[in-house]
Amino acid sequence: MRSEPDVSKSEKLEEGSLLVPQFDANGLLTCVTTDANSGDVLMVAYMNREALEKTIATGEAYYYSRSRRTLWRKGESSGHTQRVVEMRIDCDQDAVWIKVEQAGGGACHTGRRSCFYRAVPLRKPGAATLEFRDSEKTFDPATVYGEN
Amino acid sequence: MRSEPDVSKSEKLEEGSLLVPQFDANGLLTCVTTDANSGDVLMVAYMNREALEKTIATGEAYYYSRSRRTLWRKGESSGHTQRVVEMRIDCDQDAVWIKVEQAGGGACHTGRRSCFYRAVPLRKPGAATLEFRDSEKTFDPATVYGEN
Repeated sequence: MRSEPDVSKSEKLEEGSLLVPQFDANGLLTCVTTDANSGDVLMVAYMNREALEKTIATGEAYYYSRSRRTLWRKGESSGHTQRVVEMRIDCDQDAVWIKVEQAGGGACHTGRRSCFYRAVPLRKPGAATLEFRDSEKTFDPATVYGEN
Repeated sequence: MRSEPDVSKSEKLEEGSLLVPQFDANGLLTCVTTDANSGDVLMVAYMNREALEKTIATGEAYYYSRSRRTLWRKGESSGHTQRVVEMRIDCDQDAVWIKVEQAGGGACHTGRRSCFYRAVPLRKPGAATLEFRDSEKTFDPATVYGEN
C-alpha cells in the first residue's frame, strides 16, 4: 500500500483555487483598499466574515468597525461609497486587496481622498517630522458627518 | 482665567506632524507594501517598533515575523530586498504604506512577484473559485530558500 501524496494545509491555501479565508483570533481579515484609477492606497481596514461575504455578493465595500464593533458599509454615513472593481486574496489567505472606484470626496474621515496623507522622512536620524503630501481636503467632514 | 483650547488626542494624531505610531496590543503596526514602479500591492506584513525604526533609519524594509517571533529584514534569506522609496503613515497612525523597489524575483515566498496572485469573483453567488492572475512564478522558492 502506498499512501496518498501529502498535500499540506499551506499548499492548499497557497496554490488552491478554493477561497478559505483565514480570519484571525478576532475573526478579522486585513483589507487594503486602493484607488482603481490612481493605484494609491486609500485605506487599511478590517473585514469579518459577514463584511467579506457582503462585499463579494454586492461588489460594494463593507468593513467591520473595530471601534464600533459593527458591520459598516463604506459610505453609509458620508455617501462616499466604494464600488469594488477587483478583489485579490494573498498567499496565506489572511489579507485581501480591493481596487475600488471611490464615490464622493474621498475615503478618509478627515476629509481627504486617502488616509495616507503624511510621509515619514527616511534615512534622516532624529528627523521624525511628518511631511504632509497629497493632503488637501476634498470634502468637509463636519458637513458630511455632522458637527455632533 | 481661560483654559487653553482642548486639542484632542485624535486631532494630534490626525493633523499633527509628530510621528506617534499606535502599536496594537501585540506591539505591531500593519504595513502595506507596494511596488514603486507598478503600484501593485506586493504584500501585507507587520512591523514592531524595532522594525519601524530600522526601516526609517536604513531605508530598507524590515518587518516583524509573527510566526517566527523575530525581526526580519526582507530578503535576508532570499536576497530579494526592498529599498523603500517613500513611507506614508495613515490618519490614526496605526498603519504604514511603503513604496519599494523590489530586488530579485519578487516579494512572495511562493515564488511570485506579489502575494496577491488570485482574484475572488464578485457578484457571482456560489462561485467561490479563485482565479489566478499575474501568478507566473518569477523565481523558484526551493532554490532560493532551500528545500526544507
